[in-house]
Amino acid sequence: MTERLVVIGGDAAGMSAASQARRLKAPQELEIVAFERGTFTSFSACGIPYWVGGEVSERDDLIARTPDEHRERAIDVRMRTEVVEIDPARRRVRSRDLAAGAQAAETWTEYDKLVIATGARPVRPPLPGIDAPGVHGVQTLDDGQALLDMLERTRGRRAVVVGAGYIGVEMAEALLNRGYEVTVVNRGEQPMSTLDPDMGRLVGDAMTGMGITMVNDAEVTKVLTGEDGRVRAVATEAAEYPADVVVLGLGVRPETELARAAGLPLGEHGGLLTDLSMRVRGPVADGAIWAGGDCVEVLDLVSGRERHIALGTHANKHGQVIGSNVGGGYATFPGVVGTAVSKVCDLEIARTGLREKDARAAGLRYVTATIESTSRAGYYPGAGLMTVKMLAERRTGRLLGVQIVGREGAAKRVDVAAVALTAGMTVERMTALDLGYAPPFSPVWDPVLVAARKATAAVREAGA
Amino acid sequence: MTERLVVIGGDAAGMSAASQARRLKAPQELEIVAFERGTFTSFSACGIPYWVGGEVSERDDLIARTPDEHRERAIDVRMRTEVVEIDPARRRVRSRDLAAGAQAAETWTEYDKLVIATGARPVRPPLPGIDAPGVHGVQTLDDGQALLDMLERTRGRRAVVVGAGYIGVEMAEALLNRGYEVTVVNRGEQPMSTLDPDMGRLVGDAMTGMGITMVNDAEVTKVLTGEDGRVRAVATEAAEYPADVVVLGLGVRPETELARAAGLPLGEHGGLLTDLSMRVRGPVADGAIWAGGDCVEVLDLVSGRERHIALGTHANKHGQVIGSNVGGGYATFPGVVGTAVSKVCDLEIARTGLREKDARAAGLRYVTATIESTSRAGYYPGAGLMTVKMLAERRTGRLLGVQIVGREGAAKRVDVAAVALTAGMTVERMTALDLGYAPPFSPVWDPVLVAARKATAAVREAGA
Repeated sequence: MTERLVVIGGDAAGMSAASQARRLKAPQELEIVAFERGTFTSFSACGIPYWVGGEVSERDDLIARTPDEHRERAIDVRMRTEVVEIDPARRRVRSRDLAAGAQAAETWTEYDKLVIATGARPVRPPLPGIDAPGVHGVQTLDDGQALLDMLERTRGRRAVVVGAGYIGVEMAEALLNRGYEVTVVNRGEQPMSTLDPDMGRLVGDAMTGMGITMVNDAEVTKVLTGEDGRVRAVATEAAEYPADVVVLGLGVRPETELARAAGLPLGEHGGLLTDLSMRVRGPVADGAIWAGGDCVEVLDLVSGRERHIALGTHANKHGQVIGSNVGGGYATFPGVVGTAVSKVCDLEIARTGLREKDARAAGLRYVTATIESTSRAGYYPGAGLMTVKMLAERRTGRLLGVQIVGREGAAKRVDVAAVALTAGMTVERMTALDLGYAPPFSPVWDPVLVAARKATAAVREAGA
Repeated sequence: MTERLVVIGGDAAGMSAASQARRLKAPQELEIVAFERGTFTSFSACGIPYWVGGEVSERDDLIARTPDEHRERAIDVRMRTEVVEIDPARRRVRSRDLAAGAQAAETWTEYDKLVIATGARPVRPPLPGIDAPGVHGVQTLDDGQALLDMLERTRGRRAVVVGAGYIGVEMAEALLNRGYEVTVVNRGEQPMSTLDPDMGRLVGDAMTGMGITMVNDAEVTKVLTGEDGRVRAVATEAAEYPADVVVLGLGVRPETELARAAGLPLGEHGGLLTDLSMRVRGPVADGAIWAGGDCVEVLDLVSGRERHIALGTHANKHGQVIGSNVGGGYATFPGVVGTAVSKVCDLEIARTGLREKDARAAGLRYVTATIESTSRAGYYPGAGLMTVKMLAERRTGRLLGVQIVGREGAAKRVDVAAVALTAGMTVERMTALDLGYAPPFSPVWDPVLVAARKATAAVREAGA
């Protein structure tokens, strides 16, 4: 008997799951239907800032696989088709053909197995003027195209980016590359609230040095428009910032309205809750529903708590795990340690594990160590400075987190800490790690080892 | 009572030990005397190829700390003074002032604790002509200076590098940068015998593409000289290779003649054997002698056997550990996993853990997986190709080794594998590692993860 797998959402998690399931099961065993309400499948949202900034010239470069390419692999992708209801009791979903407009008939599709990969939606506060022309999100390729069209058309001079997280700082770079005067309005004390403030300050100082105007501790209260109805400025309590274009980079929330309406379990961050095989927990799902990507919460292996992290690399892994399991194989997603890397122009930013406030919230006592070092031997051309901050648990010396801000060669060093966190290593054990050394690649003590040495000393000094 | 610490060898291991001991103990508690037969202390031998190649302009850039800088920290460094005998029974060493010539009086110096850091000596086969002018080693700063002087003076055109390990390939790049036509004569099937031959071939092909003439499977039988006595060619069984300069890069052996003469225990590679605190084993050392750096053997954590690895980063770690222990603290060096990185022009080379032949020699059954990927998202400018080969144990799936050959951004990815090896991870566990992802830094699946996925599949296919 042919089973039917239904997938809601045609991006990384959903289509990775579909593709992996197809690898394991032929069409006569498993029919696969995927619903996507947008106009693209399997695209790299993470690449949008670089497309807007001009490093990536073609939109299609960001598309890993088109609907037709999926169809060639016997995945029935239904584009511009929105799922509007999940009925877990009768194992079916109701969908609507968006292209057919308001009159479209709605269709029920039954499933044996369902994958929810509805992604995330950008935070868009209900401020006056936020829907004015010239205010742009950058979540989808359509968003990116609209922003690019606008940049070409209006040839403005001043851009305001609202938010100073990953999207915010990457869009600041993109707009700088397009010749704009860029102001970043940021609610936090420092940009990059995924870092501790002392490390975020390094990012802010570097951004200022690049000619970006940083406005911290500032909440946007409204978007001001001109007589033509277009955006003309962004206002905070304290000031107005003239803007020919505004880009919103306020982060995302799990897109789980369908799941909530169906009675599926959501966590404290609003994401779906799954088990380690990425199967949705609880009696309503009844073992027939999986979920992955930006719509789920994941286990943080360091704090032992659930988190919401919207990141393409996790979505792909989830899809792979789900596809294996629904395809009759076996795989698990054990959780994350919270690694992220980014850059603003030539400044690299990386973090993994817990910040100080995360450690406190998790009930952990810790010490910190911060060091400066270089990406290569100091005498080798191109050696770039970097600052590494390390957190370790008191008494045990277990690594809790690492943050790195620096020039070329800084960011990916965080991977060493990500593996060490996964393995539960102590910082003292890390001081002996056998990392690659040669003058073009590292000082004789890799910066991560220098930080581990200082953290080891801090653990000893702190005593019990 | 003031104790006396005597250090034999003024480079990385010896002077790190002295410095760390000094940090922990003041001069009135611990007198430190260091003997160095050469003219420099604490220099970066690993940097010599880049100094010869012109990337590093000043010899002094390679010196981390001069004798006078050590003396300022109350370390009594005796330069050009060779230790000629260790007398463990009476806890003393006999030394000779080389500057004073053959008539020099020999001096006995007593120690409470002794550090042997005599380093390694380059392999120099007793071939006809090997001592001819124009044949150079590159072990010390004096060697580097002599080579540079010769390159300036003779303005030759053709260089032959003997050996295709790290020093060989780095010197090939250096001589290419100096405008030479470079031939590398290599005993092995492929260059870089620290890699499996299939990965070494990639290096060889790339070197050929750079205009370097690669001669593999070729043993040098003699060095031919001209009427002026200078080198004019290198001969193998099969052919002659004209040379205005010859550089020897045949690797090194532990410099342990003193230790051997004193009856201290040496391993099968000729290196001193120590415990985990870097204290020399056995009754002769009587707990008063430590050793580290290029003159010792270290535990390979993957194979469980002793190896000899001459590498500055290990020497520094050994010194740190020894210094802590002789200074009244406590530290250990748990062993290595065999990580090494290098480059030839823009080709990066990295390895960690076991090669296929190492795994066989260790009695392990294994599977391999080789993949190609890129250093950044494929659409991001500057994405460089790399090949990653991974070895995993059959049945258990435990990671055994990784080799990487590729362009910019390839080599330091091996650090992820180095940490995973240290932690004893399986390749399946590695597929879920939370490595940093953003388009400028990695494809959505990092190349190491792609290799881990393929290795996981190979483990499953191989079954029990």
